[in-house]
Amino acid sequence: MHKLVLVRHGESTWNLENRFTGWTDVDLTPTGIEQAKNAGRLLRSEGYDFDICYTSVLKRATRTLWHCLDELDRTWLPVTHSWRLNERHYGALQGLDKAETARKFGDEQVLVWRRSYDVPPPALEPGDPRSERGDVRYAKLDTEQVPLTECLKDTVARVLPFWNETMAPAIRAGQRVLVAAHGNSMRALVKYLDGISDTDIVGLNIPNGIPLVYELDAQLRPIRHYYLGDEEAAKAAAAAVAAQGKG
Amino acid sequence: MHKLVLVRHGESTWNLENRFTGWTDVDLTPTGIEQAKNAGRLLRSEGYDFDICYTSVLKRATRTLWHCLDELDRTWLPVTHSWRLNERHYGALQGLDKAETARKFGDEQVLVWRRSYDVPPPALEPGDPRSERGDVRYAKLDTEQVPLTECLKDTVARVLPFWNETMAPAIRAGQRVLVAAHGNSMRALVKYLDGISDTDIVGLNIPNGIPLVYELDAQLRPIRHYYLGDEEAAKAAAAAVAAQGKG
Repeated sequence: MHKLVLVRHGESTWNLENRFTGWTDVDLTPTGIEQAKNAGRLLRSEGYDFDICYTSVLKRATRTLWHCLDELDRTWLPVTHSWRLNERHYGALQGLDKAETARKFGDEQVLVWRRSYDVPPPALEPGDPRSERGDVRYAKLDTEQVPLTECLKDTVARVLPFWNETMAPAIRAGQRVLVAAHGNSMRALVKYLDGISDTDIVGLNIPNGIPLVYELDAQLRPIRHYYLGDEEAAKAAAAAVAAQGKG
Repeated sequence: MHKLVLVRHGESTWNLENRFTGWTDVDLTPTGIEQAKNAGRLLRSEGYDFDICYTSVLKRATRTLWHCLDELDRTWLPVTHSWRLNERHYGALQGLDKAETARKFGDEQVLVWRRSYDVPPPALEPGDPRSERGDVRYAKLDTEQVPLTECLKDTVARVLPFWNETMAPAIRAGQRVLVAAHGNSMRALVKYLDGISDTDIVGLNIPNGIPLVYELDAQLRPIRHYYLGDEEAAKAAAAAVAAQGKG
């Protein structure tokens, strides 16, 4: 039996400012740092240990991982960063205030962007200063691999190759894997592992900074999954995420 | 022309407590954190950028690297940890107070251990609780690869394979390399690069947290090297290191 642990990054500055974030590389808030440390403490107190770590190329996830590793006294573990674990790209909404966006486009339209599986928000213009196409961390990708917007379906499509080519072989080889990622890259993994429908996955809310454990059989089929620590706290945190909306 | 940047970790808790450290995994002090951040700020203000990073499996070096990457906004860069970049193992002196050790063994003997190239301090007993042979981070090594003591010659011997097999090929391939390491693993690299004699290398003092830049030709022969920032500050810091002694 294998165990895979996923942690969504702690609260970011734009979570706090209620702005759509996506691939924008904002940092954790002091609360987010505390959530990240707590995730590490939970893992340590429950006796978890790891051989290898995966995270995105965004600092809110990297820093969450670093805090976890610090608490686990495992700062020396190998870490692989992949853009495939990035948050869903939020297109031209990135940086916009969520309430303002709702006033501008209407609640219903924003709900469609947030909660449909295959309708992306409006795309960034390629020349938009917010576009990540000039960012050095994506320089080795084909231009079209750097999205200008994404629906969750798109996110799933670019996360899964990382699962298939990197994570799954490592887990099969007996490596104990810790992943620090984002709400929607985690949804992509969870959708795949649990075979959740396109309709249901958009209603699944993943709380910040609470380790999500998947027990997998030899074929990497999930046996069960659970959040570490207080179950009610995890539920309350997920409900808070649902109320706040995604970014 | 290639550039290689080496940074010695910031002040550690045992630097401050004047204890021999070696492979003991002590953390940075607040001063050490500030030195690490300053190293990152210097690199940024001088326009340095990197493709790949190397550090030891000890947290004072890893954390120094993390602070540098933070200041450079490069938290997503690949980092390889190797035990071969660890500090010189200080044998049975690890954890001992330096002044107390001098009283016990005599100043002259301690100077021999600190300043001879090929005389190691007394070895740890394999069963000593201070021995790292049971540490999970070294579990994949042959037992004899985990030292019970080291002279600088031993450190050079285990650092060089990392240079030859990992660092040099990366630099030759055009990768801009940042290394966060320790006084003696950096001495090992510097000795090799500059062809410094066994006698002279032990008198070379490397200050904490000041980036040391090597410009290398296509055959990786050094053209010149220099510390970033204020030259006098680097000299004063090196002199302080010399006065304090190594650990």
